[in-house]
Amino acid sequence: MRERTLIDTLLRPLARHPAARGLADDAAILTPPLGRDLVLTHDVLACGIHYLPDDPPSDIAWKLLAVNLSDLAAMGARPVGVLMGLGLSAAEDDGWLSAFVAGLGRALERWDVALLGGDTVAGLDRAVLGLTAIGQVARGGALTRGAASVGDDLYVTGTIGDAGLGLAIARGDAVSDKYLLNRFRRPEPRLAMGQGLVGLASAAMDVSDGLLIDAERLAAASGLRLSLELAQLPLSDPAAARAPRSDDALLERATAGDDYELLFTAPASAADAVAALASACKLRVTRVGRALAGEGLSITGMGGRALAPLRLGYEHQAGGSA
Amino acid sequence: MRERTLIDTLLRPLARHPAARGLADDAAILTPPLGRDLVLTHDVLACGIHYLPDDPPSDIAWKLLAVNLSDLAAMGARPVGVLMGLGLSAAEDDGWLSAFVAGLGRALERWDVALLGGDTVAGLDRAVLGLTAIGQVARGGALTRGAASVGDDLYVTGTIGDAGLGLAIARGDAVSDKYLLNRFRRPEPRLAMGQGLVGLASAAMDVSDGLLIDAERLAAASGLRLSLELAQLPLSDPAAARAPRSDDALLERATAGDDYELLFTAPASAADAVAALASACKLRVTRVGRALAGEGLSITGMGGRALAPLRLGYEHQAGGSA
Repeated sequence: MRERTLIDTLLRPLARHPAARGLADDAAILTPPLGRDLVLTHDVLACGIHYLPDDPPSDIAWKLLAVNLSDLAAMGARPVGVLMGLGLSAAEDDGWLSAFVAGLGRALERWDVALLGGDTVAGLDRAVLGLTAIGQVARGGALTRGAASVGDDLYVTGTIGDAGLGLAIARGDAVSDKYLLNRFRRPEPRLAMGQGLVGLASAAMDVSDGLLIDAERLAAASGLRLSLELAQLPLSDPAAARAPRSDDALLERATAGDDYELLFTAPASAADAVAALASACKLRVTRVGRALAGEGLSITGMGGRALAPLRLGYEHQAGGSA
Repeated sequence: MRERTLIDTLLRPLARHPAARGLADDAAILTPPLGRDLVLTHDVLACGIHYLPDDPPSDIAWKLLAVNLSDLAAMGARPVGVLMGLGLSAAEDDGWLSAFVAGLGRALERWDVALLGGDTVAGLDRAVLGLTAIGQVARGGALTRGAASVGDDLYVTGTIGDAGLGLAIARGDAVSDKYLLNRFRRPEPRLAMGQGLVGLASAAMDVSDGLLIDAERLAAASGLRLSLELAQLPLSDPAAARAPRSDDALLERATAGDDYELLFTAPASAADAVAALASACKLRVTRVGRALAGEGLSITGMGGRALAPLRLGYEHQAGGSA
């Protein structure tokens, strides 16, 4: 498919927002909403690294959007629009492209986000898909990682470790389960929860590389210590059924990536409001620990013993010569 | 190099803008300038497609920024910030990364643009570099392709075809010339000119795929015909020295890509103001044609004869199965 055909027949119908100018111009023109801050993020998914070559194209589109919207959710922002950089190989044929764009359209609609623009390049050795998401939040209201206070409670939304099991299933390394596979392929950005946490949470981030490593990052950004009780770790029923509840099993869940849940802190006085918000969002929210003076992450095992796992989650390689 | 090291030691020092939050959060927070529109664009450069594997890393960084800023220039916008998606292969070792980031830093400084955020992914087969640029323009003032009027003059900035010759030189297909090679590797986004054209030009775009094909696009977007006089085509001295001035030689220049000059229309009454602006920007601006009723692009050769070249410029392939 020629770039022009891809844009004209597949992408232009998704670019309905006036800011996109029908993808006809060099760039999109966005009139910023009055009295709001814009929140901007860019994440890349590469074939064979972030998803598997035979993952359904519509799920890949969903995930590309979802992982970026998850960053907006973590800041309490409402999505406005996206720009997409589509790097394609010969493997992404016309059928793949149609299915990808159809899935993208459904995902954009699901979260009420506009496609504003982007670029395509063909002839790569594998697909490399970049997306920039733009959101809005009340001026000065964006949640950050750095504002937790000593004494705050530490919460996590949803359940942890499902996507890691889903990846194992997608790879053929574990017995299949539709729910877990879906948690890997079609994560749900916690947008309503994130927006509701503005003014309620003291700090927030999304869990993308593993609960433990991300909690350690939140602790570092806030300049305090986070104490995490492994026994509180929320597991889905399908995940719980995979292994007896032990420190080792829980550590495996808490160090798997791709959860895209929200990790946040809030003062004890906000506990009822957090519970009410979770209920309104129809989302499980679990208190998993507390912010204390000091630094780093302390993990308490099921028997009350302090644990020091060798690995907290994914540490990405960014160059070839590490 | 680990992603954390790349971010901490190389990229964070470039992220001085408060919106970048020191790259510590999930996303950047930008307070939009009051009474201005934001202009957003995203372009991708892939190794072996948009640049050559042995191009100097600092030039690649320059070009990645420049091609995006050129889109902002075409809309009359002033750059605000960028988000970058760095997809890396084993070929981009620590030395490459250091040189790339150093060059990026110089380019950001040159154009007073902030690095706001982004993502990195390693393990690709070749580098795929995406960049989103955000600019600002007076509300409602952005230049577009679609607003030329019949009777307007058609102008182009700078000189045309240099980068095409530069690419041939970089490939080893032409005798070397520092100026031409530089025009391919380090294009100059015409930011000051673009900003000055707001309120003066009726329509504008940047020339990225070849003057002729881009002029045809402007004609289509504006719903009129553009008549282009090949004899007026502005050539640099090094480009002019490469071939005797003939229709064929001029067509070759006018169908080569990567110029990143501005193509714009303005009413005849604005001719003096356009000349004054060009002079203030120390930039050559040449009237190359006129907007007429009708559709498409008409090209007049040196002898006054109408030409119908088979090829107007680059048409990108966006899929593997065209």
